[in-house]
Amino acid sequence: MIIVMKPAATEANINAVKEYIEGLGLNTHLSTGKSITIIGIIGDRKRVPDTVRLFPGVDKLIHLTESYKLANRKFKTEPTVINAGGIKFGIDNFTVTAGPCAIESVSQMVQIAETVKAAGGRALRCGVYTAETDSLIKEVKARTNLRIVVEVKRESLVKAAAKCADILLVGSANMENYGILKECALTGKPVILCRRLAATVDELLTSAEYIMVNGNENIILCERGIRTYETSTRNTLDLSAVPVLKAKSHLPVVVDPSHSAFVMEYIKPLSKAAAAAGADGLIIEVHPHPASSATNSSQALSFNDFNSLMAAIKPIVQLEERTL
Amino acid sequence: MIIVMKPAATEANINAVKEYIEGLGLNTHLSTGKSITIIGIIGDRKRVPDTVRLFPGVDKLIHLTESYKLANRKFKTEPTVINAGGIKFGIDNFTVTAGPCAIESVSQMVQIAETVKAAGGRALRCGVYTAETDSLIKEVKARTNLRIVVEVKRESLVKAAAKCADILLVGSANMENYGILKECALTGKPVILCRRLAATVDELLTSAEYIMVNGNENIILCERGIRTYETSTRNTLDLSAVPVLKAKSHLPVVVDPSHSAFVMEYIKPLSKAAAAAGADGLIIEVHPHPASSATNSSQALSFNDFNSLMAAIKPIVQLEERTL
Amino acid sequence: MIIVMKPAATEANINAVKEYIEGLGLNTHLSTGKSITIIGIIGDRKRVPDTVRLFPGVDKLIHLTESYKLANRKFKTEPTVINAGGIKFGIDNFTVTAGPCAIESVSQMVQIAETVKAAGGRALRCGVYTAETDSLIKEVKARTNLRIVVEVKRESLVKAAAKCADILLVGSANMENYGILKECALTGKPVILCRRLAATVDELLTSAEYIMVNGNENIILCERGIRTYETSTRNTLDLSAVPVLKAKSHLPVVVDPSHSAFVMEYIKPLSKAAAAAGADGLIIEVHPHPASSATNSSQALSFNDFNSLMAAIKPIVQLEERTL
Amino acid sequence: MIIVMKPAATEANINAVKEYIEGLGLNTHLSTGKSITIIGIIGDRKRVPDTVRLFPGVDKLIHLTESYKLANRKFKTEPTVINAGGIKFGIDNFTVTAGPCAIESVSQMVQIAETVKAAGGRALRCGVYTAETDSLIKEVKARTNLRIVVEVKRESLVKAAAKCADILLVGSANMENYGILKECALTGKPVILCRRLAATVDELLTSAEYIMVNGNENIILCERGIRTYETSTRNTLDLSAVPVLKAKSHLPVVVDPSHSAFVMEYIKPLSKAAAAAGADGLIIEVHPHPASSATNSSQALSFNDFNSLMAAIKPIVQLEERTL
Repeated sequence: MIIVMKPAATEANINAVKEYIEGLGLNTHLSTGKSITIIGIIGDRKRVPDTVRLFPGVDKLIHLTESYKLANRKFKTEPTVINAGGIKFGIDNFTVTAGPCAIESVSQMVQIAETVKAAGGRALRCGVYTAETDSLIKEVKARTNLRIVVEVKRESLVKAAAKCADILLVGSANMENYGILKECALTGKPVILCRRLAATVDELLTSAEYIMVNGNENIILCERGIRTYETSTRNTLDLSAVPVLKAKSHLPVVVDPSHSAFVMEYIKPLSKAAAAAGADGLIIEVHPHPASSATNSSQALSFNDFNSLMAAIKPIVQLEERTL
Repeated sequence: MIIVMKPAATEANINAVKEYIEGLGLNTHLSTGKSITIIGIIGDRKRVPDTVRLFPGVDKLIHLTESYKLANRKFKTEPTVINAGGIKFGIDNFTVTAGPCAIESVSQMVQIAETVKAAGGRALRCGVYTAETDSLIKEVKARTNLRIVVEVKRESLVKAAAKCADILLVGSANMENYGILKECALTGKPVILCRRLAATVDELLTSAEYIMVNGNENIILCERGIRTYETSTRNTLDLSAVPVLKAKSHLPVVVDPSHSAFVMEYIKPLSKAAAAAGADGLIIEVHPHPASSATNSSQALSFNDFNSLMAAIKPIVQLEERTL
Repeated sequence: MIIVMKPAATEANINAVKEYIEGLGLNTHLSTGKSITIIGIIGDRKRVPDTVRLFPGVDKLIHLTESYKLANRKFKTEPTVINAGGIKFGIDNFTVTAGPCAIESVSQMVQIAETVKAAGGRALRCGVYTAETDSLIKEVKARTNLRIVVEVKRESLVKAAAKCADILLVGSANMENYGILKECALTGKPVILCRRLAATVDELLTSAEYIMVNGNENIILCERGIRTYETSTRNTLDLSAVPVLKAKSHLPVVVDPSHSAFVMEYIKPLSKAAAAAGADGLIIEVHPHPASSATNSSQALSFNDFNSLMAAIKPIVQLEERTL
Repeated sequence: MIIVMKPAATEANINAVKEYIEGLGLNTHLSTGKSITIIGIIGDRKRVPDTVRLFPGVDKLIHLTESYKLANRKFKTEPTVINAGGIKFGIDNFTVTAGPCAIESVSQMVQIAETVKAAGGRALRCGVYTAETDSLIKEVKARTNLRIVVEVKRESLVKAAAKCADILLVGSANMENYGILKECALTGKPVILCRRLAATVDELLTSAEYIMVNGNENIILCERGIRTYETSTRNTLDLSAVPVLKAKSHLPVVVDPSHSAFVMEYIKPLSKAAAAAGADGLIIEVHPHPASSATNSSQALSFNDFNSLMAAIKPIVQLEERTL
């Protein structure tokens, strides 16, 4: 971290800041340029309060290092593989999770699971975990051969959710719900962490760090669209985030094109693009009869459309030397 | 609601949509233009699934009316006054809420409350309600003459918060946390509802509607900055939202410039601007010693700065024919 | 186009609008719903002034059809192929344009052209057309076997540029520079039209329409990044725009990942993603020695990196059944 | 400027960068922290190519100082007053420019000028300067007592525009049109420079700097709305930009609420807010009969509305100790 002083800062201003920082038990290092002085701070930046910017003569504070360490590729250069009950996310795997927005019945879930599995998917999205869906999810789990993904929306239900699911999903609205993040950390279960609608890549990684610091390093990052001024899609899928996240972090990255594209015809090309951009997997909304789904999801793919999507990504996944 | 058909839609396409809608128990009304046909739907749009866009020949669905009714000025043209334990929000009141980000001690809160009151503030912001702060807040309430505002961040604590506070604040991160919104509705207490960082004005009003439909119409809307590409302020305070919200809704609107401006020098001019734009009040972060506050809030105003701000807005409030 | 009346609109309000519209020589069609009345306008919406919203009782105007016709896929369902001096953009072609940001010397351009051609590129980007670069460009053209692309930044130079180039490029800053667009229309030459940093897809198509209406239908659309709040890339490449533009228009779409990604390592995955998303080509910045380029372009690829990129997209292009 | 090296950078990496910088004739200054090394560069940052980020081991470049000097308040702390043919912008003046989007006739302009002048306006907006409007503008100038503002949209017409106008206006679309900016610099005439729809405050100041470096320091900055995801106004007026620009620059700042608000009812509250936020003036679109204006401007104010707006801002301007 450095503190940049204004050109008009006096020596007294500079000394006051220097002494304050050193009073916190940190070392400082002065660089005097032609017009400005920089005070470098050596040691843990967490200990320097942001309020140092209120000192006279201070222009700005600049953090030179990221706010995340465990999630940071600078400190763990090898990409991470997450093992989720036997299936893997990362490196040479391309892991497709699919399913409906909400469970309507066990028999329907079994039917969906069969389609997903036959097409090459490895995990089944089973909607949101609630006390009501608990037994349904358990039955679905018993009757299918796919890993079970459930979304957790209530802090108090995370533990129970972890008992019936293989993977927890934290939706974009909860990316910074620290109560939920902490509970997810305590379960130790793999977590798919979705980027908030207006979160930066660094904010997503800061949330991942929070779970990791609390003891669970099994994090799978998920890009699912950001809010921009463009209205032709519901959100703007930020596929640049795939290589950016891979450069900044060692964690696997999956893409959910369903929630941003919204319009069925865009989901297939964006899924192919995600695979080609280096994503480690996809999350796809699938429903046997999208037009009559209980949750009214016009973005859900029919079985035919899902099969066609899977067939289209297969050769791209192979080019990437990954296994579907 | 109308359904716009594509120019290439056939008569069979149009009839299929028409019959489907009528099968839902709704009436339709066809308008045939030079190149396109519109199917108007008469009745409750809630009953038309969004998936109707999957029918062949459908171009798009357009909602002609807003998704909120109780909050909508079209259906209640008179502005609403909210009475919060004796103080009022709306019409000819200009209601300033101030206080720190977090309670550090009762004595400090009492000191802040005296400053806020002397300067013309009417409500005291007492940080986030938790089991730990409960007794502190109660003591603060007993020892000051201001209404107490607490932020609720946990669904399970809303009821208890409502017992010790006069006004509940739903922070921007929870604008769409329906668990919290519902609990707030059940308490019947006035709610300051903050706009999410990337929420539209209509989404804010939709959240307000949710609380109102669940039985609590005492909603105060709060603009506190939206996320844009501009980085010179933490968020971009959207002051246009003040007249826009007043045109679209009858509910009072307050502005929190502290969280968007972040930099102390910008808070005063933006507070004046908010008053001049027609806001019904402000929420200001105040701390006796911002540079050494426990929460490291460089945006908190010192007592001197707060007094100066209040002096500056007073004549503008008078011009607006409001009472501070 | 429809005019939506407010719930409180009186019959007199409705009649006044109706008579005004009919006075313009247009037909109207009333739909009366439960709470609102819609006035449908049959005929050319261009003739209805926007100021009709100032009439008492009017809630809003909604355009049901796009503002572009020639560029609109609804009116020409077959995708368009653009022939640019023998090379083609669209359908089963994947056309790579590459080159430096600015011409430094003829010999350097010839060297770049050889690399581009050997790797499968078909067009050479020759920087901005100016009086000074005119003879250089002509010499480059004479000595290479690639089609020549020049950017036009001055209305007065478009004609001259069209004499020495095969394809004109309108940069994002000039997407709405109607002087330049009109001159481009008059030349009849193929135009690569770049999306402005904050333009919607519909605004890009409206600019394309302007050139087309003025007599030149040889338009190639180019997505090159939009401005969002995310700062890890210079701009956010909007790859959803590829399928969206293909759904809305019949024109070819190319992608320029260099200007948005900015960072070299992101250009290759985004190029692959663009190919997989269905783009009709790429524009790539290439320089023999990026670190010492005259224009200081850290986003330019070296020859090695360019060759590696081309090798990586080749199999994806084949999967898409296109010819590089 | 500093270069931040990656934690994994070797001594050889650091030395290579250091030697390269010193080879450019600049001095360096190394700071070695716990995990990273910073290379400070002493001297003119313009001489360090951006491509230095391509060196192995480099994490990022950080510019510590702004890219503008003449416009920077750090180097000229006193606010600037611009004298435009007798009227002033800045400090204790509040200068209202008003007029239509386009000249329809001389007599109409004279009528508008009389209204603007009577209400306290000092400058008349006369649309875009073209060869056709030249003589009209001259006649309007001869017959009114207001300073004349014309928009320049063509580089080749700036000189002629400067002959008939007192103030040149560079619209938002041309904020980075360096041809026009340079011509404006050469005229020496006061320039109102509008912020581009997606420009940052720093980019606006960089454009101002360009004009100033080229010899014309008479720049008036203009905020007129930025593009965000919010759709209830055409653009989002960024009133924070007023105090931000005042903190970063000594130049006067005016606000144009007409083009962002679009809807008439929002223009008055936003004008009041701009005055209260410390703006040095307003630009308001006025038309005798908005509903029948040639340019179809539903955002233009009628004379009555303009008079009401001026009456409303007058006391706020007085509170700010400014002269209307």
